[in-house]
Amino acid sequence: MKDKMTIIFFSGTMDKAIAMLILATTAAAMDMEVKVFFTFWGLNFLKKGKNYKEKNILQRMMEFMMPSSKEKLPLSDMNMMGMGPVMMKKLMQSTKTPSLDEFFKMAKAFNVKIYACSTSCGIMGVDTSNMIDGVDGQMGAAAFLGEAQKSKINLFV
Amino acid sequence: MKDKMTIIFFSGTMDKAIAMLILATTAAAMDMEVKVFFTFWGLNFLKKGKNYKEKNILQRMMEFMMPSSKEKLPLSDMNMMGMGPVMMKKLMQSTKTPSLDEFFKMAKAFNVKIYACSTSCGIMGVDTSNMIDGVDGQMGAAAFLGEAQKSKINLFV
Amino acid sequence: MKDKMTIIFFSGTMDKAIAMLILATTAAAMDMEVKVFFTFWGLNFLKKGKNYKEKNILQRMMEFMMPSSKEKLPLSDMNMMGMGPVMMKKLMQSTKTPSLDEFFKMAKAFNVKIYACSTSCGIMGVDTSNMIDGVDGQMGAAAFLGEAQKSKINLFV
Repeated sequence: MKDKMTIIFFSGTMDKAIAMLILATTAAAMDMEVKVFFTFWGLNFLKKGKNYKEKNILQRMMEFMMPSSKEKLPLSDMNMMGMGPVMMKKLMQSTKTPSLDEFFKMAKAFNVKIYACSTSCGIMGVDTSNMIDGVDGQMGAAAFLGEAQKSKINLFV
Repeated sequence: MKDKMTIIFFSGTMDKAIAMLILATTAAAMDMEVKVFFTFWGLNFLKKGKNYKEKNILQRMMEFMMPSSKEKLPLSDMNMMGMGPVMMKKLMQSTKTPSLDEFFKMAKAFNVKIYACSTSCGIMGVDTSNMIDGVDGQMGAAAFLGEAQKSKINLFV
Repeated sequence: MKDKMTIIFFSGTMDKAIAMLILATTAAAMDMEVKVFFTFWGLNFLKKGKNYKEKNILQRMMEFMMPSSKEKLPLSDMNMMGMGPVMMKKLMQSTKTPSLDEFFKMAKAFNVKIYACSTSCGIMGVDTSNMIDGVDGQMGAAAFLGEAQKSKINLFV
């Protein structure tokens, strides 16, 4: 039986996404079974772009204001109206750190499982058809907590 | 013996409060024993309203500036000077999601235990007499960590 | 065998630093083995001051903009352009709460282990020579997760 790790990815910021992907990929490379549950702002990471179809007026307003994809995520600190994320990307390039997208591909190559929180999807009017490749489906809080009960490491990011 | 879950609720924002209450209530509905430890900004969730009595001048200034109750909590992202929380409440109504208050009542109906961090209460000059119904008392960090040691799932939100 | 606790300290804010140090010190006082992994903005806590040597131009820009030490950390909420941290320090003094520095010394007196995340150090161009006393070295994500696997309590702060 492999050890398990779960992460709840709530915040949907670039810096926390990097931390989450490094932890998830490293754990998977150490032969742990890793499941990440994307909830609330975390759903922005999974978006393929803005989508206004089948949304009510409030959901469309939220969609308009929120980042359109993982490439547009803000920083949780020092965001500086979008300057921070640009600098961070350049800083990562200059130190030969993989990009967010490369980290995500690595996580999938190591079989990290990616789930979208079904309650958040309902509130935001999002469905899996508008999500990037690599999402393993939607999951509810109960199913997720069932996984967490069997896990050695559980983190809320 | 029931499985246990603990949550440290630090942030005191509306979005994290929703996530915390959904996780706590779902775990309790799955027959886990759930204890939530409200600390720092998290105490704002438990307040019955502004209270300036028996506070020193600094505590009164903090009280003046902080949200007066769980109905006034900001969002951790996209707060937009208070527009964000209003939109989020309407969004939740429009998708028939329970309100923060309904989520809290549900948590209590499932016997989720609610503790206020005694150190934070001391710093902020808050006591249990000015807190909402459903608070099971104050608890120190040591007692809380004793619970966490016996728990399957521990989260810092 | 002692019970273990690990904390990932990501956020680098004053309020979360206080929470982290109280949890770490209390757990150590309860005879647990405690390891804290400082990553991303958390590295600012460990800095001895600004240092521009052996950094590339982007790292120097980041260094310029970031807090120079744990005494200069912002609050995660109600920062108010630096007014918040000043008030919080006075509030803690007025309630005879130890300062951040005293909390850190206490943590070290109880043998809490302090590690700097090696990946973050690489991105930020930081090395241990410019860090405060009490840092037990750098550690990678794999070594850290190895510790977390053996721990009863794991928190991401």
